[in-house]
Amino acid sequence: MYKFKNDYSEGAHPSIIEEMIKTNLDQTVGYGEDKYCESARELIKAHIKHPNADIHFFIGGTQTNLTAISAFLRPHEAVIAADTAHIQLHEAGAIEATGHSIINVKHRHGKIEASQVENVLKHHLSPHMTKAKMVYISNATEYGTLYSKAELHALSKVCKENNLILYIDGARLGVALTANNNDLTMQDIANYADAFYIGGTKNGAIFGEALVITNPSLQDDFKYFMKQRGALLAKGRFLGIQFNKLFEQDLFYELATHANKMAAIINDTLIEKNYKVFVPTETNQLFPILSHAEFETLSKKFDFEMWEPFDDLHYVTRFVTSWATTEEGVKMFVEALANLRN
Amino acid sequence: MYKFKNDYSEGAHPSIIEEMIKTNLDQTVGYGEDKYCESARELIKAHIKHPNADIHFFIGGTQTNLTAISAFLRPHEAVIAADTAHIQLHEAGAIEATGHSIINVKHRHGKIEASQVENVLKHHLSPHMTKAKMVYISNATEYGTLYSKAELHALSKVCKENNLILYIDGARLGVALTANNNDLTMQDIANYADAFYIGGTKNGAIFGEALVITNPSLQDDFKYFMKQRGALLAKGRFLGIQFNKLFEQDLFYELATHANKMAAIINDTLIEKNYKVFVPTETNQLFPILSHAEFETLSKKFDFEMWEPFDDLHYVTRFVTSWATTEEGVKMFVEALANLRN
Amino acid sequence: MYKFKNDYSEGAHPSIIEEMIKTNLDQTVGYGEDKYCESARELIKAHIKHPNADIHFFIGGTQTNLTAISAFLRPHEAVIAADTAHIQLHEAGAIEATGHSIINVKHRHGKIEASQVENVLKHHLSPHMTKAKMVYISNATEYGTLYSKAELHALSKVCKENNLILYIDGARLGVALTANNNDLTMQDIANYADAFYIGGTKNGAIFGEALVITNPSLQDDFKYFMKQRGALLAKGRFLGIQFNKLFEQDLFYELATHANKMAAIINDTLIEKNYKVFVPTETNQLFPILSHAEFETLSKKFDFEMWEPFDDLHYVTRFVTSWATTEEGVKMFVEALANLRN
Amino acid sequence: MYKFKNDYSEGAHPSIIEEMIKTNLDQTVGYGEDKYCESARELIKAHIKHPNADIHFFIGGTQTNLTAISAFLRPHEAVIAADTAHIQLHEAGAIEATGHSIINVKHRHGKIEASQVENVLKHHLSPHMTKAKMVYISNATEYGTLYSKAELHALSKVCKENNLILYIDGARLGVALTANNNDLTMQDIANYADAFYIGGTKNGAIFGEALVITNPSLQDDFKYFMKQRGALLAKGRFLGIQFNKLFEQDLFYELATHANKMAAIINDTLIEKNYKVFVPTETNQLFPILSHAEFETLSKKFDFEMWEPFDDLHYVTRFVTSWATTEEGVKMFVEALANLRN
Repeated sequence: MYKFKNDYSEGAHPSIIEEMIKTNLDQTVGYGEDKYCESARELIKAHIKHPNADIHFFIGGTQTNLTAISAFLRPHEAVIAADTAHIQLHEAGAIEATGHSIINVKHRHGKIEASQVENVLKHHLSPHMTKAKMVYISNATEYGTLYSKAELHALSKVCKENNLILYIDGARLGVALTANNNDLTMQDIANYADAFYIGGTKNGAIFGEALVITNPSLQDDFKYFMKQRGALLAKGRFLGIQFNKLFEQDLFYELATHANKMAAIINDTLIEKNYKVFVPTETNQLFPILSHAEFETLSKKFDFEMWEPFDDLHYVTRFVTSWATTEEGVKMFVEALANLRN
Repeated sequence: MYKFKNDYSEGAHPSIIEEMIKTNLDQTVGYGEDKYCESARELIKAHIKHPNADIHFFIGGTQTNLTAISAFLRPHEAVIAADTAHIQLHEAGAIEATGHSIINVKHRHGKIEASQVENVLKHHLSPHMTKAKMVYISNATEYGTLYSKAELHALSKVCKENNLILYIDGARLGVALTANNNDLTMQDIANYADAFYIGGTKNGAIFGEALVITNPSLQDDFKYFMKQRGALLAKGRFLGIQFNKLFEQDLFYELATHANKMAAIINDTLIEKNYKVFVPTETNQLFPILSHAEFETLSKKFDFEMWEPFDDLHYVTRFVTSWATTEEGVKMFVEALANLRN
Repeated sequence: MYKFKNDYSEGAHPSIIEEMIKTNLDQTVGYGEDKYCESARELIKAHIKHPNADIHFFIGGTQTNLTAISAFLRPHEAVIAADTAHIQLHEAGAIEATGHSIINVKHRHGKIEASQVENVLKHHLSPHMTKAKMVYISNATEYGTLYSKAELHALSKVCKENNLILYIDGARLGVALTANNNDLTMQDIANYADAFYIGGTKNGAIFGEALVITNPSLQDDFKYFMKQRGALLAKGRFLGIQFNKLFEQDLFYELATHANKMAAIINDTLIEKNYKVFVPTETNQLFPILSHAEFETLSKKFDFEMWEPFDDLHYVTRFVTSWATTEEGVKMFVEALANLRN
Repeated sequence: MYKFKNDYSEGAHPSIIEEMIKTNLDQTVGYGEDKYCESARELIKAHIKHPNADIHFFIGGTQTNLTAISAFLRPHEAVIAADTAHIQLHEAGAIEATGHSIINVKHRHGKIEASQVENVLKHHLSPHMTKAKMVYISNATEYGTLYSKAELHALSKVCKENNLILYIDGARLGVALTANNNDLTMQDIANYADAFYIGGTKNGAIFGEALVITNPSLQDDFKYFMKQRGALLAKGRFLGIQFNKLFEQDLFYELATHANKMAAIINDTLIEKNYKVFVPTETNQLFPILSHAEFETLSKKFDFEMWEPFDDLHYVTRFVTSWATTEEGVKMFVEALANLRN
């Protein structure tokens, strides 16, 4: 049973674990103040050319989102997000649990547009409604799609004009920035966003998300918020060590490139064999529409998600590749796909 | 510069890291539903003889406390704790941030007594006040002291009689249960408490606290609360792997025994050389009272905490040993202590 | 300038103020424990034939909703509501501020259906999503429309089958129960709902909403929640006095009948003169679609709301009548409406 | 049975109710935007000589405190208050329910001192602790005592030097400013505090507290917070009407003067007859220490509070006078007091 269920089925990249072993008995201070975290911060700041960015390491995406959003907003302020956004659908109400509303707008392929943000602002005008103050997007999105530079520029523009914070969930930023269709760099992301996070968990780390706060007005007292949400790891060094490895060379991009390459091989077979996809494949997530019979057959050998019913006879399914997906696994799978349609 | 600053200065016990390497490329499901977590849960349930306990793994103590306490209490219910309790002093208001009050009672050596709980109940009688519903204690306490079986029995009794939840913070449960003066077993802890957690971070793990909910009425829907607080680790397997290693043999107890042994050597020297301690040493934390000159001299070679001023001429200081404290480190330190008073 | 802007433009029914004067210097206990509140509770309990109902008086609808919903739900539980629900759109995020999510479903004329609730339950199945636990409806709705007995029965049935709480916002319950098309009694409301509130503010009181909790499992400790949300009025007697007057005879229904009658006169003119309405008029709110020119002309003499643009040439507008709307005011208005279309 | 139980046993001053009758059928806009509220705001601003103050009307003290404090503080910020403060003891955890901690300091006669604030700041230095950001005091205090101008000046100074907000709960501001020992004016209060509220409920109103925000940096978006906490009264005019009456002449001060005068008569008898008081009487609250027998005898004719046990033979009791306390009531009571000790 080979798993394409998500991009966190395996452990960590071996070079990360080696580094953990090598540094294991060093004595360091706790809570992310150690030399490994400091060094990882410097690497990322140099990489994005934002020497004054504030960088904090978290152990997961939901924790990062809830800590950052509740730190950045005042109690009456709300966040605009796609109706498919992770914070809307799959974080168990974590944002609302900190007291903030999410204003949904209808996604297209997981994305939202600048004009939708303007439209929300037009309708949120009185103290009887929440005050829209932040735009949340994810890149790559929950459907594996990409924001183009033009789209991100437009969103950033509407945010700046209306004094909104632009926050980018980068749980899958690696596969976004290494995708064939991508025209953004991480430096662009840092320039357009007020804050964003770089996902490690889905890109080769044991765990780890690096929150980058480029807007200085959002940086004050941030450690307090982390502690208050239970997000300060005692042995924070393990977060620093991992981001050091990911960014001291190009490991972060290499691992994501591999995930995209594995997905592209599968996508070629889907096209060749006339499988329809629910959303065009741009990164490491694929959403083929399978008949119930095809679903049953593939389920015997592969682990993947039934995403939602498509019609009475078909399901939308989700397959995810990762830095750890093997060429053998992919080969088995494309053969199975081909066999079904021969 | 040898560090006695805390019990999380070093990484993880080597056998834990070895296990991580061995299982690293297994494909597993996420969020703590994997076979390693299942196995760790079974080991702990067998160990405490509570087959129906509900066990969840967290990455840190503050996260465990805030998730458990806010899941167990209704909005108007408050937790009774010592004025020195970790949740009161050193979690940045994490409990209040979930909406709950803490009712302080005056500690003695970090501990509270059954009669103090009864006294709170006598004064909290109307809907204009919070409703006391939980008692929080830590064992070992924030001062390294121990609850005896008689003390814990009395607290449990007052809780049961008054329909209060007894919750035990076991960040340092290992050193408590292996201390010379201890007369409790982990099974006793499980019997007396409605819920408690077993600390891994301060006892040889990279990170990891195992929350054990023995009271069935507190078990419903617990995973929702974890997700909502950002406390479900995607690659949850790493938590399972660590608790497997700690509990498949006696590693959990061996590591704590070592920490206590190192502290005892230091304590012997303190006594021998007529150093006063602020609180009697029972586990791996020592609180010697040092003159300002002694403090300066020791600070040159050792890293430790100035806890609080004692008087105009002295400080209360804190030294902490751990599973990783070396005999060489201790030897250097006792020599330095002896030299100061020769 | 005559106001049809809302149903709280005027003060209170004179008989209510008279009663306040009469009882003004009585000495009573505070916080709703006085004899006037007790008497009002008994009147309402007798009226709905629920002798064990728990009844609490609030000063406004948002305060009632946020206190009740946050008292009834555990932290991970969410409320299903129409996308036009007052708690969704016009309470400034008050529900989310207590930590709870609202799951929106698409309204039809301000109403939701049992099948929509079932559909939400089908998609909310894992601890990564919020847990649907309550259905919120308003009757009359925010569009002035009515739930029929059959519709309410169906909603109640799906709630009971799925262990959901049915909560009815009765800010405008008076006009609902006295509408021509209505087939429900207040006793029906009490039977179907687990909790509901009877709106006084919009039906002749200075202020006042009576929350009725019929489900005994939701009654515990409710006064604590009121105090904690700042909802216990010190001189609670003024709430009791008002509900006494509303329910000792039929004043509650008489006042609502008047509001509906005034709206019906306006509605007849709208029909006669071929004005389109955005939603069929059933109670005291009317939503005529006016051309920009008509809007301008009417705005000179009457105060009412531009609800939303209808198309490039028309607005949806809202006119509201109340217990205090005068026949003269209505006469002036229907003449103005007629003149515009002659 | 004459009541000295609190200062909200009776209704409202007759002139307030007359004004309500006179304006009852005026049509006004809702939510505090009406002409009566505007006029009351102007009266208060002129009275305190702060033309740029922001003034909002609430229906009760707990609601005012929780809305203001949660609006002014960021999530990690805490409020310093006496251990006898209303927000600490008698608001059912309302402040913590908004997510904020209260840092207690030991009261002396209900008051705290500037040096105690400095001491808290010295101990709250790391992100593992809450950040002290506000000082809350009440004047008159919960024990009826007064802050002198010198004491308030010192508190204000330490707040300004440390960037803390000074917030004054004026539920009983009237009796404070009209007390014999008082050397403060309401203008002083406005100058020293960043925000304070003027209590109407305990000084002749049906309900009503006027929050005055003098610090411009705390004024933004305040209506949102009111709406979100359910604190915007639909028929807000009734709040404006009351504060108009209280401040258009000297009614606010006259009513408080009467309450103090009634208390002084009782106090004279207490002194004359050698009753001990728990706290010196400065305003309208008296705390005589009564033997159990005296307590029983007085309880037959008068309603008052047993505050707390004093020793095995005595209780601390509380008697409260108000604007509505009659000279006959006081006369009966002083006779009873005298009889007991003849």
